[in-house]
Amino acid sequence: MTLPRPIQWTGTGTVRLLDQTALPDDERYRDITTVAAMREAIAALRVRGAPLIGIAAAIAVTLTEAGAGAGPTLEDVRAACSELDAARPTAVNLRWALDRMRHRAEVAVAADDPMAPALRAEAQAIWDEDRAMCERIGEAGAELLGDGDVVLTHCNAGALATGGIGTALAPVYVAQRSGRHIRVIVDETRPLLQGSRLTAWELGRAGVAYTVIADGMAAARLRRGDVRCVLVGADRIAANGDVANKIGTYGLALAARAHGVPFYVAAPRSSVDLAAPDGAAIPIEQRAAGEVRGFRGAASTPSGAEVWNPAFDVTPAELVTGYLTDGGLLTARELGGLAPLSELAVR
Amino acid sequence: MTLPRPIQWTGTGTVRLLDQTALPDDERYRDITTVAAMREAIAALRVRGAPLIGIAAAIAVTLTEAGAGAGPTLEDVRAACSELDAARPTAVNLRWALDRMRHRAEVAVAADDPMAPALRAEAQAIWDEDRAMCERIGEAGAELLGDGDVVLTHCNAGALATGGIGTALAPVYVAQRSGRHIRVIVDETRPLLQGSRLTAWELGRAGVAYTVIADGMAAARLRRGDVRCVLVGADRIAANGDVANKIGTYGLALAARAHGVPFYVAAPRSSVDLAAPDGAAIPIEQRAAGEVRGFRGAASTPSGAEVWNPAFDVTPAELVTGYLTDGGLLTARELGGLAPLSELAVR
Repeated sequence: MTLPRPIQWTGTGTVRLLDQTALPDDERYRDITTVAAMREAIAALRVRGAPLIGIAAAIAVTLTEAGAGAGPTLEDVRAACSELDAARPTAVNLRWALDRMRHRAEVAVAADDPMAPALRAEAQAIWDEDRAMCERIGEAGAELLGDGDVVLTHCNAGALATGGIGTALAPVYVAQRSGRHIRVIVDETRPLLQGSRLTAWELGRAGVAYTVIADGMAAARLRRGDVRCVLVGADRIAANGDVANKIGTYGLALAARAHGVPFYVAAPRSSVDLAAPDGAAIPIEQRAAGEVRGFRGAASTPSGAEVWNPAFDVTPAELVTGYLTDGGLLTARELGGLAPLSELAVR
Repeated sequence: MTLPRPIQWTGTGTVRLLDQTALPDDERYRDITTVAAMREAIAALRVRGAPLIGIAAAIAVTLTEAGAGAGPTLEDVRAACSELDAARPTAVNLRWALDRMRHRAEVAVAADDPMAPALRAEAQAIWDEDRAMCERIGEAGAELLGDGDVVLTHCNAGALATGGIGTALAPVYVAQRSGRHIRVIVDETRPLLQGSRLTAWELGRAGVAYTVIADGMAAARLRRGDVRCVLVGADRIAANGDVANKIGTYGLALAARAHGVPFYVAAPRSSVDLAAPDGAAIPIEQRAAGEVRGFRGAASTPSGAEVWNPAFDVTPAELVTGYLTDGGLLTARELGGLAPLSELAVR
């Protein structure tokens, strides 16, 4: 099973990104050498997916430019974190990863440790932990899947969205590794087509069977009765279990409920924001009109058409069957009540 | 208020179509002079919309080629009807209009009337009746709308889909004519984007305010609470009120129900097929994979990706608040029980 590597260290301590805006046509890599370049890459969705942008931002902090001859100062690190934090507003992982980097920089200064190795170790730890979390999510979710099962997913919460085997797709990969064949119904996920461009590409590489549908087909597909469960990721989960995820997730959850199809949200516990009591407290990113006005460069509306383009929606906890986390399959109540979560979230 | 004219007689008795596949970029017209050309135009969606393809097919029958010096024979007409009937399977209007044309040809032969004028008169009658039905649908629906209301629609069931002011959009136009300002939220309607390409273009011409959204945004938009009602058309309505309409309609109906937003289906009574007891009896057209694999040449999936592409879905009658018809606002029970409907449908 070959999974893509959306982010890699280069030999020289900079980082190489797979430019996800060019998929599925081109597998194009970009070397990122500055904080500003990573901020642009995050804002332009060259690198995307809540867990992955946390990793990417952490790695970007290691690129903080130092004054001549010196390592970066705490002020340099804080400035880099502020710059990166503003790149996208909804995913909590970005803020959480930057909080960790800032904290590590403070510890290094207090202990008089050299800054650069400390930052690099912390970024690598965030990445390694994410990879391990993906595996645990996959193990928890694979128990739900039998040979020949069909699952339905939205957007991309796979290897291209994380530092490992993904969140929503992790159960599929773990099941497939153990010899169970799964078919994935892939919502194309307008406007940016992360499903048809990224999830389909990634599943094809991994040798997993898939079927792409337009987003409006999901309800009709669920009605056919052959979908075992819906698996989606999360950009942020509120304390009560409400889930901010890619726009379209909420309608999908309503359709799943109408047909009695289990609806699972797969995310590391670091996606839980205990400071947000419910979904209404989660800021929703509004993106540019051009994304809805066209389709990969081809205009699809009259020029200048008024559009509404929220990048995410909120699925209320009552529509979620369970949360597949690095701590196993949890209920909304368990998710909000676990002590380690608050440490993870506010650290 | 300027509405487009998707079909027009030319001075020479042939017909001119607005090629809807080229919108919104190009307003391109094609002269259609043969049955085969009209069949191609219907199958390729150059002319589309359940009522309009009925009109277009009826007009195409008037183009039936006659033997040298003679008008078309009954056999010529029957062959033309068979050819046109196979162009698309789901909309009942196509079959219904062709049944009328065949019947008129039989009457002409029995009465020894000249064939060509008889066919032309029947096609014009179908068109004129459709125009009048649109007006009555508009009057029935406009009563539901107040100044400043926001409605949400899917696909295109406007002037571009009918011989008049549309079905789902007719209430908007009637309200607007009487000085009430309405905003229409337009689902873009993948894969062929009839909402963003056609409905937005048509509303813009008519001076009606609109906002285009991706299909997956509809549930989030309905949750905001500012949508007065959902208005959609129908390609075929079963005797129990189940509605076959553009793929995505069913998910929209589920979302409307979840938010208590009234969901109206606007269609002439000729869209009711009393021979179909419920939605399961309605054949659903499966269209080519290429429609989901991209848009206008821009690929959105890996090449050769497996897709599922039903053109329509079925919304169960229990999700429909009411049917806006040329006979007023009806319930499913009224729709199935009205005597004139069976005459219309089987005539």
